[in-house]
Amino acid sequence: MKDERQKAARRLTIDHLSPVKRRPLNEFSFIQRIREQAHAQRTREGTVPSSSFIPHPSSLLSGIGDDAAVFRASSQLDFCITTDLLIEEIDFRRATTTPCFLGHKALAVSLSDIAAMGARPRFCLLSIGVPADIWRTRFLDQFYEGFFALAGEHEVLLIGGDVSRTPEHIMIDSIVIGETKHGRAVLRSGARPGDHIFVTGALGGAAAGLQLLEGGARLPARSSRRTPSARDQLLLRQLRPTPRVGWGAWLGEKKFATAMIDLSDGLSSDLSHLCRESGVGALIDAARVPIDPNLKALKLEADPLSLALHGGEDFELLFTVRPRQARQLPAEIAGISVTHIGEITDGVHGCQLDINGHKQAFKPAGFVHFR
Amino acid sequence: MKDERQKAARRLTIDHLSPVKRRPLNEFSFIQRIREQAHAQRTREGTVPSSSFIPHPSSLLSGIGDDAAVFRASSQLDFCITTDLLIEEIDFRRATTTPCFLGHKALAVSLSDIAAMGARPRFCLLSIGVPADIWRTRFLDQFYEGFFALAGEHEVLLIGGDVSRTPEHIMIDSIVIGETKHGRAVLRSGARPGDHIFVTGALGGAAAGLQLLEGGARLPARSSRRTPSARDQLLLRQLRPTPRVGWGAWLGEKKFATAMIDLSDGLSSDLSHLCRESGVGALIDAARVPIDPNLKALKLEADPLSLALHGGEDFELLFTVRPRQARQLPAEIAGISVTHIGEITDGVHGCQLDINGHKQAFKPAGFVHFR
Repeated sequence: MKDERQKAARRLTIDHLSPVKRRPLNEFSFIQRIREQAHAQRTREGTVPSSSFIPHPSSLLSGIGDDAAVFRASSQLDFCITTDLLIEEIDFRRATTTPCFLGHKALAVSLSDIAAMGARPRFCLLSIGVPADIWRTRFLDQFYEGFFALAGEHEVLLIGGDVSRTPEHIMIDSIVIGETKHGRAVLRSGARPGDHIFVTGALGGAAAGLQLLEGGARLPARSSRRTPSARDQLLLRQLRPTPRVGWGAWLGEKKFATAMIDLSDGLSSDLSHLCRESGVGALIDAARVPIDPNLKALKLEADPLSLALHGGEDFELLFTVRPRQARQLPAEIAGISVTHIGEITDGVHGCQLDINGHKQAFKPAGFVHFR
Repeated sequence: MKDERQKAARRLTIDHLSPVKRRPLNEFSFIQRIREQAHAQRTREGTVPSSSFIPHPSSLLSGIGDDAAVFRASSQLDFCITTDLLIEEIDFRRATTTPCFLGHKALAVSLSDIAAMGARPRFCLLSIGVPADIWRTRFLDQFYEGFFALAGEHEVLLIGGDVSRTPEHIMIDSIVIGETKHGRAVLRSGARPGDHIFVTGALGGAAAGLQLLEGGARLPARSSRRTPSARDQLLLRQLRPTPRVGWGAWLGEKKFATAMIDLSDGLSSDLSHLCRESGVGALIDAARVPIDPNLKALKLEADPLSLALHGGEDFELLFTVRPRQARQLPAEIAGISVTHIGEITDGVHGCQLDINGHKQAFKPAGFVHFR
């Protein structure tokens, strides 16, 4: 599981996104192709056809290729919708998490996508397939306990889903719908040269947590400590991520972010997605990248900076702001601060990383499902 | 796969839905419990909280417990959303279908749910997980070919999804969003005593097709026949179902249907769902139930009436109409006619089946994932 991600996190520059002409494509290239087919369908059929019975039908604003799709509901309201798969043995292992954490994480990953659109989450649906042996246990009760706890925290309503049997492995699909005021959704494509690049919270913790889990570390069943140890905090970053719902909604509502993406694949990969969609480049100052403080407290095999630059699943937000607005950002929201880590450039040099004054290419090195 | 469904289709009266107090619950009881939890969450939090930044936020009209959830977008527009899992070895086998049929069916099952709400489908998302060996083939290309062909037919736009690796089996989650005019969504709960019960098309074909597949029958790679044989038509009912999109949208837009459900679990099961939600009973005349004509043309092990009464996956629509409106129904839409098969009753006797003047209990006997 994710051994590629772990290996990738130890290296600095690997380009997994170089164009591959023959099959198999990696999933990014594949999604790009599906996106082109969906676009061709849209173009072929002209504007979205409307039922003659509906005077003001919905219309698509942004489809495949962002953290969530955006469609217009009225002259006042837009909706964002996202869906995320969590597959046993690929995204999690039964032995290293708890049903409650898994329920939390299933919702958290999709809430993070909605936050990355600058939208406020409202509704969710959950599809879950489990094998017969899991069905006979308390697994699903505990799973929904974790799910409902996070849903309640953000006042997101569970409105549907599906339950099925599977032959062997647990599989989860988590769908969240968010809303924004008309035109306020923040796409990946709005960054302009000169924009400042910010990131919420601190990076690398989730990837370190994954390495610890794969190395055999486990959370204690019950801890007598008042605050979790550095090691346990890293495990929690991986097992029980916190989506930046407050920051996302604020940045959208206030029209502060020009572009945004959540850090699910890793800073290097997700920055490259944002830059590609915006048609720009970026210069990141390695010294400013906020590294999870727990990484420094522990001696790990992997380099903390490398984990922060390439490790996935931190679910922090990466966003860009016009220079004149940057100083108006609040110090923190829900206890989470933001850090200015670089600038958007004109794109001639792509994404670059400045390490002690030496600029080098900053290439994606996150997790890839298929190569 | 679905051996329970096949067995069930051979019998007339089995009650899989009798209340089970201990674990394991079947999935219907489980979903009912999740529904109660979701309702408790909603009640606890009062009306859906609204962002102070959004003047007219969305609101939930109907959550878990119908073919799709319904939420209000504006004073003119409501949305319906549904999600359906298709799991390899549970819902299909690689050896008995084609990637193209599977892509078609993945979308068809969710379009059917939207039709059952009286809504017009607009957008779809698709999450798919495949093992590495499938990724290296043309499977996904052909899958999306089938998917896009059906999407194009109904002018439904693919706006998002997810792609993942799985350890072994293919798993698909298909999400469709439909729209209706304000207040026009048709719920399961609107049937009243005296309403006439109608069903579109003919029943039992998909269950017969499944039995044929499980018995080793396969579609010919290329057929020289101008029209498929009776056997092949039954296989196609199972492998490539046609959602009744036209009828669904018409019944919603014209406000003709008082309640509606799609026949995915089987007439006996789905009628019981509709009656429970409406708090009514039903009397079905067995002689009027439209049996797939191909069933009569072939000698099958199973009784044709039993397949029509209990067999799942026909994806026809079951709906109720006030008596005075019943005669205004069109003869057919998109080549599909409707049949008046019975009446809604006050519920004292539950669901009943009239066979040659003898009334008997008509109990659910469809497929159940978990017992």
